[in-house]
Amino acid sequence: MTDYKTLTGQPFKREDFDSLLKRKVFLWQSFEPYGSVKGLFDYGPPLEGLESEVINIWRDHFIRHEKMMALKCSMLTPHDVLKTSGHVDRFADYMCKDPKNGEILRTDHLIKDVLEARLQSDRAARGLAAAPAEDDAKKKKKKAGAVKAAEKLDESTVAEYEHILATLDDCTGDDMGKLIVQHNIKNPSTGNDVEPPVAVNLMFKTQIGATSQEPAYLRPETAQGQFLSFQKLVEYSDGQMPMASASIGYSFRNELSPRSGLLRVREFLMAEIEHFVDPEGGKAHPKFHTVANVKLPLLSRQIQKSGKTTPEQIAIGEAVNSKMVDNETLGYFLVRIMLFMQKIGIDMNKLRFRQHMENEMAHYASDCWDCELLNSYGWTECVGCADRSAYDLSVHEAATNTNLKVREMLKEPKHITEWVAVLDKKKSGPRFKKDAKAVEAALDMLSQDLKEKLSLDLENEGKIEVDVDQVESGKVELTKDLVTIERQSRTETTREYTPNVIEPSFGIGRILYSLIEHCYWTRENDPARSVLSFPPPVAPIKVLVVPLSRNAAFSQHIAALESALDAKHISYRVDQSGVSIGKRYSRNDELGIPFGVTVDFDTVKDGTVTLRDRDSTRQVRADVKEIVRAIGRMVKGKEVWKDVQARLPVFETGAEEE
Amino acid sequence: MTDYKTLTGQPFKREDFDSLLKRKVFLWQSFEPYGSVKGLFDYGPPLEGLESEVINIWRDHFIRHEKMMALKCSMLTPHDVLKTSGHVDRFADYMCKDPKNGEILRTDHLIKDVLEARLQSDRAARGLAAAPAEDDAKKKKKKAGAVKAAEKLDESTVAEYEHILATLDDCTGDDMGKLIVQHNIKNPSTGNDVEPPVAVNLMFKTQIGATSQEPAYLRPETAQGQFLSFQKLVEYSDGQMPMASASIGYSFRNELSPRSGLLRVREFLMAEIEHFVDPEGGKAHPKFHTVANVKLPLLSRQIQKSGKTTPEQIAIGEAVNSKMVDNETLGYFLVRIMLFMQKIGIDMNKLRFRQHMENEMAHYASDCWDCELLNSYGWTECVGCADRSAYDLSVHEAATNTNLKVREMLKEPKHITEWVAVLDKKKSGPRFKKDAKAVEAALDMLSQDLKEKLSLDLENEGKIEVDVDQVESGKVELTKDLVTIERQSRTETTREYTPNVIEPSFGIGRILYSLIEHCYWTRENDPARSVLSFPPPVAPIKVLVVPLSRNAAFSQHIAALESALDAKHISYRVDQSGVSIGKRYSRNDELGIPFGVTVDFDTVKDGTVTLRDRDSTRQVRADVKEIVRAIGRMVKGKEVWKDVQARLPVFETGAEEE
Repeated sequence: MTDYKTLTGQPFKREDFDSLLKRKVFLWQSFEPYGSVKGLFDYGPPLEGLESEVINIWRDHFIRHEKMMALKCSMLTPHDVLKTSGHVDRFADYMCKDPKNGEILRTDHLIKDVLEARLQSDRAARGLAAAPAEDDAKKKKKKAGAVKAAEKLDESTVAEYEHILATLDDCTGDDMGKLIVQHNIKNPSTGNDVEPPVAVNLMFKTQIGATSQEPAYLRPETAQGQFLSFQKLVEYSDGQMPMASASIGYSFRNELSPRSGLLRVREFLMAEIEHFVDPEGGKAHPKFHTVANVKLPLLSRQIQKSGKTTPEQIAIGEAVNSKMVDNETLGYFLVRIMLFMQKIGIDMNKLRFRQHMENEMAHYASDCWDCELLNSYGWTECVGCADRSAYDLSVHEAATNTNLKVREMLKEPKHITEWVAVLDKKKSGPRFKKDAKAVEAALDMLSQDLKEKLSLDLENEGKIEVDVDQVESGKVELTKDLVTIERQSRTETTREYTPNVIEPSFGIGRILYSLIEHCYWTRENDPARSVLSFPPPVAPIKVLVVPLSRNAAFSQHIAALESALDAKHISYRVDQSGVSIGKRYSRNDELGIPFGVTVDFDTVKDGTVTLRDRDSTRQVRADVKEIVRAIGRMVKGKEVWKDVQARLPVFETGAEEE
Repeated sequence: MTDYKTLTGQPFKREDFDSLLKRKVFLWQSFEPYGSVKGLFDYGPPLEGLESEVINIWRDHFIRHEKMMALKCSMLTPHDVLKTSGHVDRFADYMCKDPKNGEILRTDHLIKDVLEARLQSDRAARGLAAAPAEDDAKKKKKKAGAVKAAEKLDESTVAEYEHILATLDDCTGDDMGKLIVQHNIKNPSTGNDVEPPVAVNLMFKTQIGATSQEPAYLRPETAQGQFLSFQKLVEYSDGQMPMASASIGYSFRNELSPRSGLLRVREFLMAEIEHFVDPEGGKAHPKFHTVANVKLPLLSRQIQKSGKTTPEQIAIGEAVNSKMVDNETLGYFLVRIMLFMQKIGIDMNKLRFRQHMENEMAHYASDCWDCELLNSYGWTECVGCADRSAYDLSVHEAATNTNLKVREMLKEPKHITEWVAVLDKKKSGPRFKKDAKAVEAALDMLSQDLKEKLSLDLENEGKIEVDVDQVESGKVELTKDLVTIERQSRTETTREYTPNVIEPSFGIGRILYSLIEHCYWTRENDPARSVLSFPPPVAPIKVLVVPLSRNAAFSQHIAALESALDAKHISYRVDQSGVSIGKRYSRNDELGIPFGVTVDFDTVKDGTVTLRDRDSTRQVRADVKEIVRAIGRMVKGKEVWKDVQARLPVFETGAEEE
């Protein structure tokens, strides 16, 4: 992504950005003194604080605002649960081993990398594209003879490769094994042939208790715990539908060779919502009208099929009407997801909703949209929003023989009149003995038409013959004294159904990483001075307190400021180091601290302090109470800097910032 | 605990309490449709919400207020880390198997249960105590012949048993095995002999990646991740001491037969603080003077040794002065822990700090106090507050060859004059070849006295002899041209040391469980009407909105109320069910909702609503804005009900509550 730009339109330099994250202790690979472990990260104070604020906003925006039922379910999960859900059999990646150096390659990545390289080389040969860029990885591949800078392919080969790439997600291991042989795909970094693909399950396996024979796993998603709590949710919500549960919790994926930093890790925080809805009535949402006019950047299946990648700005009401988005509930959540992203400070120019292609979705899903955020690694799936239909509840119900349905009182009772055949049990019992139940069941199963015909036969001939597989002769004779067949009326007042599930599923780590990139820029007058423009409500520390110097006269004023901030539960840092105020601000801009308060000699005279805005570096001056009040309002999102600057006296400073 | 009482002094009935938790979906054993798993619990909306509020208060009370550095470290932990920390070898329980029925018993529990039963039976025989109560478990044991209701023991046997019980925690598996044979201890529920004790490690084992040969574990505590982040913490805090990190995260313990509900589970949330302090200067705490007068209920080692169990109320300043509590930092945290407990609603009459006996502490700990909460299971350790000395940093430093020390600028540079022996390397290299380094090291290691003596010898005789183990002869001769020994002066400006660690470690699940019990009581006029008196800041839902009826005239007023509550981010529930207002309030008292707002026909007339206090059932009446403002202040802890009742018009109601 060489054309990826920062917030202010500057080219994004990954080295500088990574160095900032390291310098300010945002994150690092876990267990560094022991050599670090790939795919596991520790969060330092700035990132832990950011996560905590983002989670609080998520809770408020979804759980509180939508009155969802928050759940916390166990991470340790017994085998049978994940067997039913399909994870034991299907939560796997296919791997190929390079037998000569032992390298393990993800099969789909291998095929994709090799075919894409060949296509790019073909485009270069046709003069349609530049030759592949010569970064280190490419050079290595070239050396191994896997990629030629420019080599033309047959038209039919190009079409075949494109078809393979488009359908790769649907391939089984065998399919991929055949492709590797057929297209002579080798390990690009060595040129060696690879062994046939082997499925490797990605769940972490363990065992609960000392004596259990069955394995257990660390859950790969929080969703299953929520489905298995379904009866509790129905109880808590008095069976009212729609209803939604939400879980914020960790899931695990035993990646074989993790890469891309925080974007693909082995242990990650998810926030998942399961919204249960009656499939009858088109999955309407009671609050849809409140968002119908909101426009979203939608990259529909149709646009993607036309080969374009630019989303259209479409009002969600229109998108649901035209059936581009399957239903109101899905549409409502897409809007809520976007509003959440906006609230935490995601750049709206780096957000889109991409619809899954038919072959991307699980077989049971009826529609799925990913909220993708653009970062320096490319467009990254950060929220999946899928309609999982009734799949999960149905499979767990079948596997456990429990009732995972909702029973609904019908508004209008349903009157039903139909033919009913009833055995006189006092007589049928002794007559049919062990077959009595089978006879009764066979009678029940008869169609309405047949029952009507048999009632006439019974009337006319005094007996009928009914097929019963379970008895030896395959049929039984029933006389008038054993059976009556007549039209009966009854009234149904309830209806039972399995709800469908709309599931918005948030990967918190990916969102946090994208957010930090989106907030990153450098001051124009000095590219070494970088800034993280976290919105005040999500910034991990809100205020930097900077006394002009260590002069003892400032102490009581610093103390007063501290207790005013403490009283409002606002987090702050006091920087009493010897360097200039400008340097101290600069250093803390990199932590994304939105506000700075200076205590100087005027403070000693009149009790006023200055308040500095990180992004504009503009300052106002007022007394401590007024300044802390303004900070409090901005931290809660009730005011923004522009409002404060408009109502408090502006303070013009000299060259302090330099 | 038959004498355990509720908040209002009523006898506590566990069945009623458990039934409330079940009915209101607070928690349940995980994976119920699959038969549930012992020791794993799911939290429903009320408990998840309670936990979230308690965690927010914890963050504010500790992390923000004390300016701690929050960390989030990985749960998956490689083998080597936990080998160094001692968990691979020592995080184990000893188990005995009953070979006849396969039952597995924790060895220490087995010995304790049997010996205590014998002692109680002895006391009964002496008329000093009632015969053991005949609950179901006891009846079973009696049936198995393991306990006799009253059987006198020798004086010496009593003394021996008491000694064993007091030192049981120090026993190895072998020790316990001998005790079982020596004292003829059998499985009390069957009367069978048991097999010798076997150590079973309590960590969940798994594997990171597909090819790793080393096992990994789910961490048994969050502490190790914090110790391994030490260098990052020093970097972030610019090396200023004392400093503290804090982690809120999950830990795991593969209990063999979990019991006692939430008090002993396999997967649990901890909040752990590691406070790093310079061991020189007596571990003083800069804010100790702000808490010195706070009195705490301290059950010291001395009181326990005297056989008493009633704590003394002692000011922490006094306790530290008298060395009952080892140091100021430990004392400061004990106070902060108590204040936290008070804030979330723990009954101060059910809290005490119990000091560990010498034999209870880890070998490296210098003092340890548990904050214990009384609940219906007895006094329960909910926070451990230990001085771990420099143990953890030292062992990790040694195992990884990294520097886990703090370097401090000395206020006064230190001038050191001492004897120094220096080899002339140009000559000693060729002369001693591979042994040169060993010779140099041997010289360095000589004592000051010896160096002084050798300098004279060298002066007088032109050569000296020095012991060097590594050379064949065990010594080398050094001539004047090879070595000089003289007094040298140097100035040290820095000092390096390994900080000591004070670790307050909170078990969140145990605290939550105790909190719910502490808040539980039943209305005097109707024992079936139970109440959970959660303080407004921790209550999972803050407001119940109850329209008098479903009359359409109320809709717009309900909507106005909802948007006023939404604007203040206050969680609420609307109960439009058909039952009486009193019943609706009653039902929600069990969820601990502190406030109720009624919309009635007067609301339609003048826009006023009533506000009801859960605990007193008293009501006030005012307009929506005023009522929502009062709720907001009480939820933030800025006001309590008494204040609101004093300033808003009291509303007298009829028999609605009945």
